[in-house]
Amino acid sequence: MKIVRFQDRSGYLRTGFWTDSGIEAAGQKYNPEKINILPPVQPTKIVCLGDNYIEHLKERGFKIPQDIPERPQLFLKSPNTVIGHRDTIVLPEVGIDSRKAGDLGDIETGKRRIDYEAELGVVMKRQAKKVSEKEAMEYIMGFTCVNDVSNRDDQSVERNWVRGKSFDNAAPIGPVVASTELVSEDPRVRLILNGETKQDSKNDEFIFSVPEVIAEITRFLTLEPGDIIAMGTPSGVGPLSHGDKVEVKIEGIGTLVNFVQKRE
Amino acid sequence: MKIVRFQDRSGYLRTGFWTDSGIEAAGQKYNPEKINILPPVQPTKIVCLGDNYIEHLKERGFKIPQDIPERPQLFLKSPNTVIGHRDTIVLPEVGIDSRKAGDLGDIETGKRRIDYEAELGVVMKRQAKKVSEKEAMEYIMGFTCVNDVSNRDDQSVERNWVRGKSFDNAAPIGPVVASTELVSEDPRVRLILNGETKQDSKNDEFIFSVPEVIAEITRFLTLEPGDIIAMGTPSGVGPLSHGDKVEVKIEGIGTLVNFVQKRE
Repeated sequence: MKIVRFQDRSGYLRTGFWTDSGIEAAGQKYNPEKINILPPVQPTKIVCLGDNYIEHLKERGFKIPQDIPERPQLFLKSPNTVIGHRDTIVLPEVGIDSRKAGDLGDIETGKRRIDYEAELGVVMKRQAKKVSEKEAMEYIMGFTCVNDVSNRDDQSVERNWVRGKSFDNAAPIGPVVASTELVSEDPRVRLILNGETKQDSKNDEFIFSVPEVIAEITRFLTLEPGDIIAMGTPSGVGPLSHGDKVEVKIEGIGTLVNFVQKRE
Repeated sequence: MKIVRFQDRSGYLRTGFWTDSGIEAAGQKYNPEKINILPPVQPTKIVCLGDNYIEHLKERGFKIPQDIPERPQLFLKSPNTVIGHRDTIVLPEVGIDSRKAGDLGDIETGKRRIDYEAELGVVMKRQAKKVSEKEAMEYIMGFTCVNDVSNRDDQSVERNWVRGKSFDNAAPIGPVVASTELVSEDPRVRLILNGETKQDSKNDEFIFSVPEVIAEITRFLTLEPGDIIAMGTPSGVGPLSHGDKVEVKIEGIGTLVNFVQKRE
């Protein structure tokens, strides 16, 4: 089952099911191309993992195995970051550069880069606090695609990644929530930029599993229905530019498509 | 004008005004001691400042003026942190210690400490994005007291302070939102622990002003009505213990009282 939220032509907000033959809601059929697909849930917070794929760690210069983190590395995206399927990622002003201009870009230090990061999103069904690994899957509504859009320029100089990760429209999610039986434990996550595959987790794997992460987060924080955990990104992160079409494709869920535009 | 949200004896949620003679709502008078005071707003996010008082910077070992940050240092508290006036701060398990036991506490590195931090909270009235310093005050509903309760143990080892700052009940707010004309630009903020004053900003001052902070945050993030900016804490932070009564007292607003209890 793949749940989708959308507006019909009258603007009415509906919840439906995305099937091979289109979207169904209350006995009606809708063409996905002709309706406004909304974010499938409205999270009160997105709890994100950094450093949760071995190959992505290597890409960032970590030594394996001694630099593998002991606990999930967590950060937050606030609700203002959420946009949906086919929405536009408007590139933010890059804060540091506007004050310290002159640097035309450096991949190592991340200047002037707004990056894509394809990630598996875990969507909570029930309120969760102090949930054990064994029970964790009972608290999940399903899975969605997340693009953890990242402002490297500010991220690289911030103690906490607020400008770097929580700017408006930094969290495209969707297009659906696929129920748990449709998605494997560590599904193949891909990022496709203008038709070219840039990230592919096929030969990579999670350091911390979904149940481990839920147990760890809920030791500290209550997760609410609709809240999302973003499971970290595989190797191959890279920059977005004005005019790009960026897709997060996850086996069992579908493809989240967004378009990129510089600020007008 | 001091706005308060509360439940009357029937459980009905009401918004009223806190005056010298009690609380008034819809022509009725209520005794503040006999009703359940709720958090005055329901923020979608709390954007917090670190390092925004000179004396607190010195306390943390910063050199003045060379270590004064160029921009406000931001971090987030998620909505699960919010509790109200007279609610109980339940101390969280301290994560690192439960895995690396043996250390009985070290003030320098912050082991085994849940700290109070008294702060001025700025409450947004209107949705705000790319607001100039000059216009910033027009977007404010008023001010409230915030206790930025902090888990030093985890904070000291986290890249982003999620376990350190966003655990449940880490953000007591209230008891009221006082409108802007009641509160000065840099009001006196005090923390009183079991009757003893522990923090007092009287001889300290903000590094970044409220309008500067609103302008900077809204370059990146949309603030929603009810969202809170916590303006950082003055010197004198210290630990909370089971059984404590902790008060944040701000000139022009009032006193936020909370009780501390270890996890049962």
